[in-house]
Amino acid sequence: MTTPSLPSTAVLRDVVARALAEDLGHGDITTEVLFSEPIAATGTAVAEERDGLVVAGVAVAREVFAQVDPSLRLTARLGDGQHAEAGSAILTVHGDGRSLLRGERVALNFLQRLSGIATLTSRFCEAVRGFPVKIVDTRKTTPGLRALEKWAVALGGGSNHRFGLADGLLIKDNHLALAAAWPALAGPALTQACRKARERAPHGLKLEVEAQTLGDVRAALDGGADIILLDNMDVPAIRKAVELIKGRALIEVSGGVTLANVRDLAAAGPDLISVGALTHSAPAVNLSLDIVPDRGRRSRARS
Amino acid sequence: MTTPSLPSTAVLRDVVARALAEDLGHGDITTEVLFSEPIAATGTAVAEERDGLVVAGVAVAREVFAQVDPSLRLTARLGDGQHAEAGSAILTVHGDGRSLLRGERVALNFLQRLSGIATLTSRFCEAVRGFPVKIVDTRKTTPGLRALEKWAVALGGGSNHRFGLADGLLIKDNHLALAAAWPALAGPALTQACRKARERAPHGLKLEVEAQTLGDVRAALDGGADIILLDNMDVPAIRKAVELIKGRALIEVSGGVTLANVRDLAAAGPDLISVGALTHSAPAVNLSLDIVPDRGRRSRARS
Amino acid sequence: MTTPSLPSTAVLRDVVARALAEDLGHGDITTEVLFSEPIAATGTAVAEERDGLVVAGVAVAREVFAQVDPSLRLTARLGDGQHAEAGSAILTVHGDGRSLLRGERVALNFLQRLSGIATLTSRFCEAVRGFPVKIVDTRKTTPGLRALEKWAVALGGGSNHRFGLADGLLIKDNHLALAAAWPALAGPALTQACRKARERAPHGLKLEVEAQTLGDVRAALDGGADIILLDNMDVPAIRKAVELIKGRALIEVSGGVTLANVRDLAAAGPDLISVGALTHSAPAVNLSLDIVPDRGRRSRARS
Amino acid sequence: MTTPSLPSTAVLRDVVARALAEDLGHGDITTEVLFSEPIAATGTAVAEERDGLVVAGVAVAREVFAQVDPSLRLTARLGDGQHAEAGSAILTVHGDGRSLLRGERVALNFLQRLSGIATLTSRFCEAVRGFPVKIVDTRKTTPGLRALEKWAVALGGGSNHRFGLADGLLIKDNHLALAAAWPALAGPALTQACRKARERAPHGLKLEVEAQTLGDVRAALDGGADIILLDNMDVPAIRKAVELIKGRALIEVSGGVTLANVRDLAAAGPDLISVGALTHSAPAVNLSLDIVPDRGRRSRARS
Amino acid sequence: MTTPSLPSTAVLRDVVARALAEDLGHGDITTEVLFSEPIAATGTAVAEERDGLVVAGVAVAREVFAQVDPSLRLTARLGDGQHAEAGSAILTVHGDGRSLLRGERVALNFLQRLSGIATLTSRFCEAVRGFPVKIVDTRKTTPGLRALEKWAVALGGGSNHRFGLADGLLIKDNHLALAAAWPALAGPALTQACRKARERAPHGLKLEVEAQTLGDVRAALDGGADIILLDNMDVPAIRKAVELIKGRALIEVSGGVTLANVRDLAAAGPDLISVGALTHSAPAVNLSLDIVPDRGRRSRARS
Amino acid sequence: MTTPSLPSTAVLRDVVARALAEDLGHGDITTEVLFSEPIAATGTAVAEERDGLVVAGVAVAREVFAQVDPSLRLTARLGDGQHAEAGSAILTVHGDGRSLLRGERVALNFLQRLSGIATLTSRFCEAVRGFPVKIVDTRKTTPGLRALEKWAVALGGGSNHRFGLADGLLIKDNHLALAAAWPALAGPALTQACRKARERAPHGLKLEVEAQTLGDVRAALDGGADIILLDNMDVPAIRKAVELIKGRALIEVSGGVTLANVRDLAAAGPDLISVGALTHSAPAVNLSLDIVPDRGRRSRARS
Repeated sequence: MTTPSLPSTAVLRDVVARALAEDLGHGDITTEVLFSEPIAATGTAVAEERDGLVVAGVAVAREVFAQVDPSLRLTARLGDGQHAEAGSAILTVHGDGRSLLRGERVALNFLQRLSGIATLTSRFCEAVRGFPVKIVDTRKTTPGLRALEKWAVALGGGSNHRFGLADGLLIKDNHLALAAAWPALAGPALTQACRKARERAPHGLKLEVEAQTLGDVRAALDGGADIILLDNMDVPAIRKAVELIKGRALIEVSGGVTLANVRDLAAAGPDLISVGALTHSAPAVNLSLDIVPDRGRRSRARS
Repeated sequence: MTTPSLPSTAVLRDVVARALAEDLGHGDITTEVLFSEPIAATGTAVAEERDGLVVAGVAVAREVFAQVDPSLRLTARLGDGQHAEAGSAILTVHGDGRSLLRGERVALNFLQRLSGIATLTSRFCEAVRGFPVKIVDTRKTTPGLRALEKWAVALGGGSNHRFGLADGLLIKDNHLALAAAWPALAGPALTQACRKARERAPHGLKLEVEAQTLGDVRAALDGGADIILLDNMDVPAIRKAVELIKGRALIEVSGGVTLANVRDLAAAGPDLISVGALTHSAPAVNLSLDIVPDRGRRSRARS
Repeated sequence: MTTPSLPSTAVLRDVVARALAEDLGHGDITTEVLFSEPIAATGTAVAEERDGLVVAGVAVAREVFAQVDPSLRLTARLGDGQHAEAGSAILTVHGDGRSLLRGERVALNFLQRLSGIATLTSRFCEAVRGFPVKIVDTRKTTPGLRALEKWAVALGGGSNHRFGLADGLLIKDNHLALAAAWPALAGPALTQACRKARERAPHGLKLEVEAQTLGDVRAALDGGADIILLDNMDVPAIRKAVELIKGRALIEVSGGVTLANVRDLAAAGPDLISVGALTHSAPAVNLSLDIVPDRGRRSRARS
Repeated sequence: MTTPSLPSTAVLRDVVARALAEDLGHGDITTEVLFSEPIAATGTAVAEERDGLVVAGVAVAREVFAQVDPSLRLTARLGDGQHAEAGSAILTVHGDGRSLLRGERVALNFLQRLSGIATLTSRFCEAVRGFPVKIVDTRKTTPGLRALEKWAVALGGGSNHRFGLADGLLIKDNHLALAAAWPALAGPALTQACRKARERAPHGLKLEVEAQTLGDVRAALDGGADIILLDNMDVPAIRKAVELIKGRALIEVSGGVTLANVRDLAAAGPDLISVGALTHSAPAVNLSLDIVPDRGRRSRARS
Repeated sequence: MTTPSLPSTAVLRDVVARALAEDLGHGDITTEVLFSEPIAATGTAVAEERDGLVVAGVAVAREVFAQVDPSLRLTARLGDGQHAEAGSAILTVHGDGRSLLRGERVALNFLQRLSGIATLTSRFCEAVRGFPVKIVDTRKTTPGLRALEKWAVALGGGSNHRFGLADGLLIKDNHLALAAAWPALAGPALTQACRKARERAPHGLKLEVEAQTLGDVRAALDGGADIILLDNMDVPAIRKAVELIKGRALIEVSGGVTLANVRDLAAAGPDLISVGALTHSAPAVNLSLDIVPDRGRRSRARS
Repeated sequence: MTTPSLPSTAVLRDVVARALAEDLGHGDITTEVLFSEPIAATGTAVAEERDGLVVAGVAVAREVFAQVDPSLRLTARLGDGQHAEAGSAILTVHGDGRSLLRGERVALNFLQRLSGIATLTSRFCEAVRGFPVKIVDTRKTTPGLRALEKWAVALGGGSNHRFGLADGLLIKDNHLALAAAWPALAGPALTQACRKARERAPHGLKLEVEAQTLGDVRAALDGGADIILLDNMDVPAIRKAVELIKGRALIEVSGGVTLANVRDLAAAGPDLISVGALTHSAPAVNLSLDIVPDRGRRSRARS
């Protein structure tokens, strides 16, 4: 497998700058009052999840520390997309310890969230191993972090659905509800909508349609849909739909997908299973950043 | 209880604008190819969580729809901070159905995430009911959404810790690690650090110190700490620390706090319990936005 | 036909703000020294092209004048996408004459360029009338104005190709040149590239491939291309390619298309003809903005 | 002759960043699916205009490629302002071929437009060779690109008129139309306006006035204008105006200037001829960017 | 006299937004903890300077309060540019008292600084009353506030010098120092510089030159300077220069100008006196904002 | 003493970019017309204040010149916070003389203002030497420059009060005026306000209250204030308040503090004296930047 491309430098720079502005405000008061001079030190990010995790965000952490202090030097111990055992080092950063303290939280916030997404995605991919099906993400991403979160999904082995409303045609139930306002519909609204879309859409985009019943599936095939999204159907219904479609369109399954039911859904034969939880509900993984001054960690005096 | 203040208009406007830019890109292709004329319609956001949820984000959804189309009219059915039963309507938006489709996903992404945080916070607050302790958040927030997420915590009944590095003094283990590089320390580094901070810090900020052992607690008291954060201590250790401190400092408990153990931790007597999971791992709540054209939802033709 | 959607409010606002900042700088010195008080006046934008023009940019002019002075009132006499005869009024703006002077040049700069594009596009569409072919634009747009220029193409009757690199798959000669670096290619690079793209690309995008020879066309069909772009082929070659493809893929013709040869190209049977000149070389149309104070234009005293 | 100064780094960086954001969006899908690893390659921009062209925009292309990938190395083969024969190389860029593909279109869009302006300007300058007259630009520039376009005019041998409304005094017909609202004007409005402007304007700016008749010219001289713009006058009228003015003011000719009539206008004796078409209607020149992988272009396999 | 134009809405909006972001950060903690509900109240800005002041900044305060809370209503009691007696009300703002508290400091910071500049300028203008000389500002303004500060100078009765480096030609001693690097200068560098500038500069700008000796003045006249700036000359030298120039150029006096010596300088006959202190050293004037809740100020209970 | 931390790189970069945009606009016309080629030169910033000054802003000047031209090399002769004798060099910059001219004014504007603040602060600190009291700043800073101005105060030996409304609790008279609208107050509003604030405020902030009478002081102590601000009290009143408080709260004195009365105020025993004039009325110090081309300053030819 190949490493997915990182979001563009401009996106990365902007997202990181905002996160730092938010956390640093007009300065790191605690560090300023304690340390007036630079202190050479090394920080190490360590995986603290018992079952390990899939790393995502080293490239973001690199940008965080670079913005805090361009003289810091970051070394990746594990690349984005690699598995980290519990206790293993993910990266080290070397330089002024005060700068490490300033960047620590923001770097960890990115790493924990993105690795959480990559790790959860890898679990879903693992769960469907052996079936010719792709796990794909949705538009249910954190506002402002879509590019990074879709990258994390790819690092975890998933595939990306359309990025936003501009780069994919997907007719959903709310579109059909509005189609009720069309004058004089001959035949199912869904078929009409498909035909209208095919006629007017940019020529490079395939047409995807959400179907809630087998009747919808038939209407979609009549309308010439390239992809049919089976929304919230149970396994028997999915099997019937697969049979009905017989390769005439790609099949996506969506709605209520969990680690518990994803293998059964995969066995029913769809080409794609989309999972909103990959990005809207992945718990953060546990990571720490340990900082040690270069002349060695003195044993701290304690009473 | 009173409703916490919404983040400033400027922050709200900016966060929403970025989220819309991300999702809308150069346009909502599907809606454009299907509908060339305005269609009067009404959208209703409905709570889909079996156990209900605490609403957070109506004010954000209002900004989303206003930016998409200023002629849309949003009516709050429930206010931010209120409990929504499963199936109840949270808000309705009225206007051109095409604009509703354009704003739908972004509005829901905000509502689902923020309500997820408020709902989880309210569970923690419920769990410690009866104890004189506050549930507080941390800096482990989503990059770019700190102000909104801390607002959601407050809506759920929690209290806010410092916003960032600039508005609170908190000496943590990594600061003490660096203090090992100080010359000639007489007595515990932690005590020295407290004294240094008290002398040089802005006069309006209290001094908080992280303690990992009872020795650390004593050193913090010697140094004149105003607040002592007991990090990752178990309940017996917390009890001893509470006894040792005897009201001379505020006590915050932190590390590995879950809904399962939070009541026991509260019973040990701290003033504050901080919970990173409130913001870094709250699952999104389930919400839908149902759109109906004003001339009534026609029964959709199905084969 | 239906009116294409205007670019998003956010894009419009930003593009106009930059244009005004550029032209107004720290103020309109001439107007300031001449007029200290408001002067009620009306400005009328008039088409000055002998053969008329297709209007594009009224919505942009509206934003320009709104940003200069929110109290101005703009009335569209002709809608975007309509034909304006020579001498006909396109819009009027009423309010403080000083504000009209401040917005005049920027409003005209947008209107003249965008109407130029719409007008040229309409000539190309007219030239192929009767053939089942679409005139489409390219990515050869003015840096910073892509959304507006693609909108102008649509207003002129053209269709839009992909917006940018993110929403369309198009394998071009430079991709194939790099594919030479691939190890051990069995069969044509073009076929390999198609297969690789089909396997890894987002499932909602069709695959388009540039072909320079009939051999390329065959390789593209073997690779499963959905759309084949015939680059710089002459009419006989296009005819052969059309015959070879026989409906198995959409056919786009590109390269050196002019008003002189476009009808012959259309007659050869492609589905799409893309024309870079629509956006990179459309001459601006002639427009004027005449301003008259409300108490009537006094005959100017002349010696 | 000397090379005009490039627009400031800040302007350049901003304009380029916007152009790249527009074209790259959330990524170059085609390149990403085809190439997972870096491929050392060299791109060469070649002039494809039969009659050659004046190069403008190498400095912009340098910024484009630097923003796409700072490790790319650009070498200018011809400097901005130099003449390029058909087929000659303008610049080469070396580095990861995927980055070359990402920056290609944006770099070319700038180079083609700016070189188009410089080339057209050089034709106008050539046409008036031998006369002591300057070809100057106007404010009829592309919104957002004024600084770059005025730079291109200078590279083509033209001179720059005022940048915007803030750095020049120019009383036009629309100002005089509003002056009709002034109370009790003794003498021509144009003379009054000149006097008012001289009295109140910043002391460092000369006063320019648009004249449409010889009467206007006399009124402008009475008002003390420093520069008189003869608007849309024919050659005999210009000759009379030149005679009337006799060196008491600079003379600018404007309106309907073409390559066909510019030499006759120059012969009539003005100091300046301003040409809106330099920036609003210059056709883009033809340029290509050929990319070759470093291990040599393999002959592409074809059936 | 007429009221100078306010800086553009865009500039005003931006400058105010930054000032508010700086002061409000993530919220007005004190007001939030004290007041959970709106409190109708009225704030009145009062002049607290014994000798009165010239008002500047009411328009800015209006923008401040509008950004803080669009429902606030501001009424100007005195216009920008008017004199305020000690104790007189300048403006009132009515609405939610919490919003008044949030905007108070930023509004006052603008009003105090800008009124300080207008007031000092009016003193200088008063001091030269009767002489045909203008008091003008310099580029020695507060970074980020130039447009507002130059507006305040105009409100105080002064005139504006060039806005920045782009809208005026001014050859200073540092230019001449660099001219020493020119090859083979025949005659004074200053004369050469003037000639070079006249030949190459935009045709709408006058040429100003700094002179430190009478020799410089002669060289400037030889070079055709339109304006001569007498830098740091004493009164007798200025008189000689005035005599030498005899109306062939405008004369500006600069350097070490104070309220104590400005009348003597004016008496020596220059056209303009420029004063850096107007903007770089004007002390803020004293203003207060008194807030009273609408149900009347209750006498505060005191022990 | 230690050097206070510079404001963050992001703040510095942004503030400087805006200042340069303001001054440079679309270019330095004078320099461009005079010099077409680079001229190696050195600029030296020299203190021109008879009594010397405290340097503040070298780090800002470094950013200014770096943004103008990254190839310039700046060497600090004196560090920020050091005393500069009259006539001493503060910094030198080496590189293309044209770039020095472009950055000169902006660099000096920052240096003169910030050094003015540091110098005035050092005078206040000197005046209270021997008393255990800190001189602190206020929120009366220049809009947009707060971070830099508070840094300059620290460089002059002062301490920083809260940065803005978000990082400090300070109940002022206008809060109490609004408290009059509270229902049913038992006891002084000030005491009630203190209690309300202590209950609801973030746990890490101390509570400061403004007192105008001794009664207010008692009410504040009853309410548990941590810091009491004695507003506009005379020396005898301050002495009584100090006696009354007896170490139970920190004491800040404010209002009408001048170099003439500050020592008497200090002698009365407060912990802090806050001085608005440090930032709102510090006069700029005199500095010059002398530029010399590297081949030596030629003696300028004079008649």
